[in-house]
Amino acid sequence: MRRIVTFNNVSADGYFSAADGGLQCAVPDDEIYKAAAERPGIDTMLFGRRTYEMFESFWPHALDDSAGPADPHDARRRSPAVRNQAIWINETVKVVFSRTRKEVTWKNSRLLHELNPEEIAAMKNQPGQDMIIFGSGSIVSQLTEHGLIDEYQFVVAPVLLGNGRSLISGVAKSLRLDLLEARPFASGNVMLRYAPRK
Amino acid sequence: MRRIVTFNNVSADGYFSAADGGLQCAVPDDEIYKAAAERPGIDTMLFGRRTYEMFESFWPHALDDSAGPADPHDARRRSPAVRNQAIWINETVKVVFSRTRKEVTWKNSRLLHELNPEEIAAMKNQPGQDMIIFGSGSIVSQLTEHGLIDEYQFVVAPVLLGNGRSLISGVAKSLRLDLLEARPFASGNVMLRYAPRK
Repeated sequence: MRRIVTFNNVSADGYFSAADGGLQCAVPDDEIYKAAAERPGIDTMLFGRRTYEMFESFWPHALDDSAGPADPHDARRRSPAVRNQAIWINETVKVVFSRTRKEVTWKNSRLLHELNPEEIAAMKNQPGQDMIIFGSGSIVSQLTEHGLIDEYQFVVAPVLLGNGRSLISGVAKSLRLDLLEARPFASGNVMLRYAPRK
Repeated sequence: MRRIVTFNNVSADGYFSAADGGLQCAVPDDEIYKAAAERPGIDTMLFGRRTYEMFESFWPHALDDSAGPADPHDARRRSPAVRNQAIWINETVKVVFSRTRKEVTWKNSRLLHELNPEEIAAMKNQPGQDMIIFGSGSIVSQLTEHGLIDEYQFVVAPVLLGNGRSLISGVAKSLRLDLLEARPFASGNVMLRYAPRK
């Protein structure tokens, strides 16, 4: 069966974004970008609208020529790890859940107007590789509620946000996990991987 | 100078208590209780009222004779690690910040009606050993705001709460940390220790 894996940057005080949606919880880490650019066995990404639009504003253009030294994304674009990640993200199937979007035009994207747990369960039974979710707190919460997530990956950044939004909320029951890995990086980021306890 | 260290159980989704204040984020761990019972170099605990009252309802009686097999705390009381921790907690100086409490009667306790950052800074300059804060989200947030915390210790439990309260909130500026340690335990708990970056 195809697995669903979540991947999120979170702050040490447990926020995945600032109150205004900003991603100050991420501490740049080429080691992790490199690992993220080499995701064997994943052929599909699932998104909430907000995270999709953040990705849509950067990745389709990440391989464009530099807009010059004043371009804040320029340094990132020059990194080979980010270039590999851009190729991977643009080529991978992207499923975005949104009640408000009318269409999606980014390459290999597909729009679904609602998250139907039975449809997701059916996707897991289709032939194919695993699926990954970046960010997308609302989608992660709904899939957690329905027991559809197979692995949670948190990159805990060495930063206290002090305030912000929690990744998972509104889920009625707590869920016991098994720790799969706790891996510190030189940047101070720590990767924590968990699977729901069977 | 005396240091202030925080110690908290948090869930993998970043909550330090359920919405109702329950501590389902903690996964029992005798290895960690044992380490907690041997805290050399700490002679003072700082508390918010809510956490103080949770401690006050258990620890002063933790060495009493068992109330019989139906007593839910009985198994904990029999653990030597918990007995050592009880002795340590009862003997240590406890400072509780509360606007509403009129008095405190638990051994070695002292009541302060407000958290005055200058008073805390003065305490750090007094002779003595380090100070520790368990739980007490509001106190941790206020001391973080004033840059008075020297080390943050999080025990990340292998559980998703799905909903709850964040330890730190209402702090205006984010704070960059250095990772001191990332240590997994057999229980699946992971100890993450950080110091504010100088």
